Amino acid sequence: MRIPKGHPRFESLRIRELLVKGLRDGVVVPEGLLAHGRGETFDYLLGERTSISAGKAVRASAALMLISKSSVVSVNGNTAALVPREISRLASLIPAKVEVNLFHRSLERERKIAAVLHRSGVREVLGVGVDASVSIPGVSSRRKHVDPRGIGGADVVLVPLEDGDRAMALQSAGKRVVAVDLNPLSRTSQAASISIVDNVVRAFPRLIGEVGRLKSHDSSYLKRIVSSFDNPRNLAMALSEITEFLDLWRVGS
Amino acid sequence: MRIPKGHPRFESLRIRELLVKGLRDGVVVPEGLLAHGRGETFDYLLGERTSISAGKAVRASAALMLISKSSVVSVNGNTAALVPREISRLASLIPAKVEVNLFHRSLERERKIAAVLHRSGVREVLGVGVDASVSIPGVSSRRKHVDPRGIGGADVVLVPLEDGDRAMALQSAGKRVVAVDLNPLSRTSQAASISIVDNVVRAFPRLIGEVGRLKSHDSSYLKRIVSSFDNPRNLAMALSEITEFLDLWRVGS
Repeated sequence: MRIPKGHPRFESLRIRELLVKGLRDGVVVPEGLLAHGRGETFDYLLGERTSISAGKAVRASAALMLISKSSVVSVNGNTAALVPREISRLASLIPAKVEVNLFHRSLERERKIAAVLHRSGVREVLGVGVDASVSIPGVSSRRKHVDPRGIGGADVVLVPLEDGDRAMALQSAGKRVVAVDLNPLSRTSQAASISIVDNVVRAFPRLIGEVGRLKSHDSSYLKRIVSSFDNPRNLAMALSEITEFLDLWRVGS
Repeated sequence: MRIPKGHPRFESLRIRELLVKGLRDGVVVPEGLLAHGRGETFDYLLGERTSISAGKAVRASAALMLISKSSVVSVNGNTAALVPREISRLASLIPAKVEVNLFHRSLERERKIAAVLHRSGVREVLGVGVDASVSIPGVSSRRKHVDPRGIGGADVVLVPLEDGDRAMALQSAGKRVVAVDLNPLSRTSQAASISIVDNVVRAFPRLIGEVGRLKSHDSSYLKRIVSSFDNPRNLAMALSEITEFLDLWRVGS
């Protein structure tokens, strides 16, 4: 179905089509569509824009990744379907490594996602097949298998669209986790060092912009940005933004 | 994957599996998974229980269907995958007709859904193929095609998991619409005569229970239940229930 550009829901319908196509191509799993739908409701309740709190989290994340020794962008099916070019751009700017890490794991799907990333300009895709040879303690799903050159040795991991308790395990393993998750109440958002409560299709271009702006600053400046960021406080702000949106409706009804 | 019964998310994981199976069987479309995900977030924000306002809406809906001349339960892919037996039970209790009405329409899918319903005890399934021979004015999607023996001639239509502007068009055509929609802000919820803001897997058993309880009452009693029900007020209550849930989190954080 062709969506007319003037349709009020154009952007969210465009994203849905990308995911449905991803499902057909074997990049996205059915569970990924369910997860995206859950995110859509939060996005809707946040007014489908990058909020002030999300903007702050993006800035802190950009600074953190720039001062990290080894940053890795963890990619799942939905992220590969939605922002492959942005992943490539962000990774080359920081520079960060890119690793495929799936909850519903199969070698075929890992390879398909790696192919999508390669086509979008990512030179090296880690974590495919036997390359994911080490385990993160405390993760019960097959997401535990990681690449020693990537997440295994990273000090900062960007986990967009996380779906489990991996964020906590990564933090316990001494890594800083940057989450992109539209649910401010999720265990991922609560456990992460920095939680960007925003849609990946908006968060990634923003991250790229911030990394570009902050890249020329010295590390003491970047460290100050990171240390002055308060994740629980920022999440409380995201929650307030949702209740304010709902209150507007209540006043109108 | 086998879900252990003690898992805190057992019920929502069980439902997701039913839908993923429905997708594999050609009953559910990918867009249905996205829609379910959106509903899941609202359900989560409502505490995953039938709220007081939803209970009231269920009671009014049961009364309305019992006094109607011709009630029809409109069925789409998600509903057929989730509550086929409950549809059958409710339809025989009222009695109401059952009609397949899809946004993503194909004869093959209509037949598959009809087969699911037949297997669950529904004797006659309306709206399949050429049986949907009349049009509802004002509906732009292929949902406009309805069966003259069913939705075409109905005075009350139960539309669970609606996805468009059909509710408004049905109301304009002089029919009363009972919606089951977890989003209290949706156009469907706003347009319906009665909006049950609840998960279909809870709303249908509740509806069956209420119809059973109210069946023996005379029509003047039932009419009073219907006329004393105020949908905008009830929707405002559902909204309050969500903000109260979020406020609890804010206090805790």
